[in-house]
Amino acid sequence: MSKRLVVIGGDAAGGSAASQAKKRQRDLDVVMFERGRATSYSACGIPYWISGAVDDEASLVARTPDEHRAAGIDVRMRTEVVGIDLERQVVHWRDLDGGAAGTEPYDDLVYATGSVPMRPPVPGIDAAGVHGVQVLDDGAALRAELSRDSVRRVVVVGGGYIGLEIAEACRMRGLDVTVVDRSATPVGTFDPDVGAQIAEAVRKEGIDVVLSDGVAAIEVGRDGRARAVVTASGRELPADLVVLGLGVRPDVRLAQEAGIPLGTSGGVAVDARMRTRAEGVWAAGDCVESRHRLSGQRVVVALGTHANKQGRVAGINIGGGYATFPGVIGTAITRVCNLEAARTGLSSVEAEAAGYSFVKVGVDSTTKAGYFPGAEPIHVSMIAERRSGRLLGAQIVGREAAAKRVDALAICIWNEMSVDEILSLDLSYAPPFSPVWDPVLIAARKAFEAVEADVRQL
Amino acid sequence: MSKRLVVIGGDAAGGSAASQAKKRQRDLDVVMFERGRATSYSACGIPYWISGAVDDEASLVARTPDEHRAAGIDVRMRTEVVGIDLERQVVHWRDLDGGAAGTEPYDDLVYATGSVPMRPPVPGIDAAGVHGVQVLDDGAALRAELSRDSVRRVVVVGGGYIGLEIAEACRMRGLDVTVVDRSATPVGTFDPDVGAQIAEAVRKEGIDVVLSDGVAAIEVGRDGRARAVVTASGRELPADLVVLGLGVRPDVRLAQEAGIPLGTSGGVAVDARMRTRAEGVWAAGDCVESRHRLSGQRVVVALGTHANKQGRVAGINIGGGYATFPGVIGTAITRVCNLEAARTGLSSVEAEAAGYSFVKVGVDSTTKAGYFPGAEPIHVSMIAERRSGRLLGAQIVGREAAAKRVDALAICIWNEMSVDEILSLDLSYAPPFSPVWDPVLIAARKAFEAVEADVRQL
Repeated sequence: MSKRLVVIGGDAAGGSAASQAKKRQRDLDVVMFERGRATSYSACGIPYWISGAVDDEASLVARTPDEHRAAGIDVRMRTEVVGIDLERQVVHWRDLDGGAAGTEPYDDLVYATGSVPMRPPVPGIDAAGVHGVQVLDDGAALRAELSRDSVRRVVVVGGGYIGLEIAEACRMRGLDVTVVDRSATPVGTFDPDVGAQIAEAVRKEGIDVVLSDGVAAIEVGRDGRARAVVTASGRELPADLVVLGLGVRPDVRLAQEAGIPLGTSGGVAVDARMRTRAEGVWAAGDCVESRHRLSGQRVVVALGTHANKQGRVAGINIGGGYATFPGVIGTAITRVCNLEAARTGLSSVEAEAAGYSFVKVGVDSTTKAGYFPGAEPIHVSMIAERRSGRLLGAQIVGREAAAKRVDALAICIWNEMSVDEILSLDLSYAPPFSPVWDPVLIAARKAFEAVEADVRQL
Repeated sequence: MSKRLVVIGGDAAGGSAASQAKKRQRDLDVVMFERGRATSYSACGIPYWISGAVDDEASLVARTPDEHRAAGIDVRMRTEVVGIDLERQVVHWRDLDGGAAGTEPYDDLVYATGSVPMRPPVPGIDAAGVHGVQVLDDGAALRAELSRDSVRRVVVVGGGYIGLEIAEACRMRGLDVTVVDRSATPVGTFDPDVGAQIAEAVRKEGIDVVLSDGVAAIEVGRDGRARAVVTASGRELPADLVVLGLGVRPDVRLAQEAGIPLGTSGGVAVDARMRTRAEGVWAAGDCVESRHRLSGQRVVVALGTHANKQGRVAGINIGGGYATFPGVIGTAITRVCNLEAARTGLSSVEAEAAGYSFVKVGVDSTTKAGYFPGAEPIHVSMIAERRSGRLLGAQIVGREAAAKRVDALAICIWNEMSVDEILSLDLSYAPPFSPVWDPVLIAARKAFEAVEADVRQL
């Protein structure tokens, strides 16, 4: 009898795991449960669907249920797994539309439930007109809201990547938009100097940014709909629509109930092959924790690119192959209001928390040769370990063609290169692409000088 | 008495060496000889000055003679060094305008003479109306020619980077342009498939491209000006102006005459600190040979980015510091007629010549998420060593935002990463910047599969 793989969750991680396992082992029975309406879609694309830059929902979907079925995967849409029985090796499921329920046995199980949006425990949070932005259905709900003429004022709670992307999308639709964030600068994963530049760019687009102020309550009208956001400092921000962009946490409820161990970070604990500590159970995507290669800590990073890679690794291993996921180094990128920003490695705060002592430098340059038409400003900051000069982190902020340079620095960090080694790298140069010293090399040179100066003082 | 540094050549390498040495050792006497009209300028910017994209000559100059002088460097413009006496440690110079001559003693000497353009030894090559494109004066001469109404038809001999960039510049000025190249595809440093795409893009801009055909002669009119290029196959290409874009060779004449040893490649031989084999003589820039980190061979690569780095290294060492130039891996980038192309590591031909056995793959993807507005095509090819899967070379061709990704792969090659390691890298992802699997990761994944398939067959 052929073996059976059950996959919980049909988005990036689950879909990749199912596909890879089936591809490697043709006689494997693969059943994939998805409680939503879509499989393998780009959640990161939702803001652009909302703004109208992307026209239809279908283009966000990389692989439809029918495409998965054509590859031999038994996809059960709108079907939620409500329990896992590790002892009997079965999952309990429920059809969300028809109401039917049943169990499905497994030999291998992939836990790919993703994440759940953070919801602050404040009065009014469950009112109509308060939306998260996480799954495709959230996007559809938001689009429906935004097409109503009565929606003119939007308050976005949380100034992280997604919050700002949604704020920009709403602004592009001509609405009045306010972003509220507890921190002094938005996108807390960046150092404050980068965050300040982002705040400035967002404000220039006519978006109101309220910083250092949290959400205390959501005021609800007689119709049961949210009508204002009240901040901790007492400001009242009128809102026809409230969007929660406070980030996500791993969806581990089912795992906890079943007894699949979590890690120190709160995500499902997995080894390098994406095996959980429960026999026959694998996990991948936003719900798992990963090893941070610089801090040595376990971290939860909800990003489609990790989900895809982790799903692939789980699938290959389940299909009889061998693959590992080697961890993360905190690379991220965003474009908000024509400003590009990216980071890799540790931020200053993270580096300190990890016990590193370091020097920090920043340089201003241009994306092309200074004299070349279309050269745009780019700022590169780096932190390098004292004495060794090892690159620990880098952040880039600038205009078009600035931020994707972070990949080069991510690979330097991955290989534990020192800024001294980096400044000698054979990187590409031609006037339409960079100054003769690429901005990342100028930064490395300056960081090297700072490391040397520091050594002389030691 | 303070020591004296003499620098021959005031462009990228010489200028950097002089600046760094003076900066490190304030009491050093530094004399820099430059036979042209400018110091520290961007020769790579000349095509854009010719096209008109860059307005004035001054913007191509990174550091003027007066700026060098303000930093304490004794700059002798329009002054050619005509001989080096290693025994007596002096150079002989000649003022090109006034005719004065003299000698200058040195304790350290930097040989940074750059390169000379290749000139095919064919009849008519020295006629009026035949120009090289190498130094700023060449650019000025070409601009003067192009502003004459009688110049309508331009033939560019050589389809390398510079040849094509000049061809495009002339086309942008509304001229009839033909490029002639001996090879079957232009830009011979690229694999033929990339070269073919470049040829297509160039032709689409209305530039005639004649391939697999060399130059046999230049026909000269009664006025002494070139009037046509005659190819080896007998074609006659009418020309009011002929531009030579056949590449350059290191300018080693003075070195040879003085007895400064050359290396196997024909460039001046230097060690890691940029010391030649002659006592007290250093060299940097287009005139030296570098170690290719993959082939192990010595190669001459004429690129401003290497010249700057090598000059810096020589200057630091002369100034009492310690620095090395660790070699090159063949990274290059160009934009021609809206097509971007880049390479790093070894091409297929180079890898074979170096004795490597490898698999080659190519993938087509997009520069942003496929659904994102402005996503452009990108093609990434990779060659990976058999068994080890070590990345040996990569080439990228595509539209906007495609080619600069080569830096990421250059750093992978620099660190001797295998395609297996590469596909797991934590690279940046957001829909405005890449698909969820960045094109370079997709290529690495495919290369890994090819390596695995090859191993199974071994």
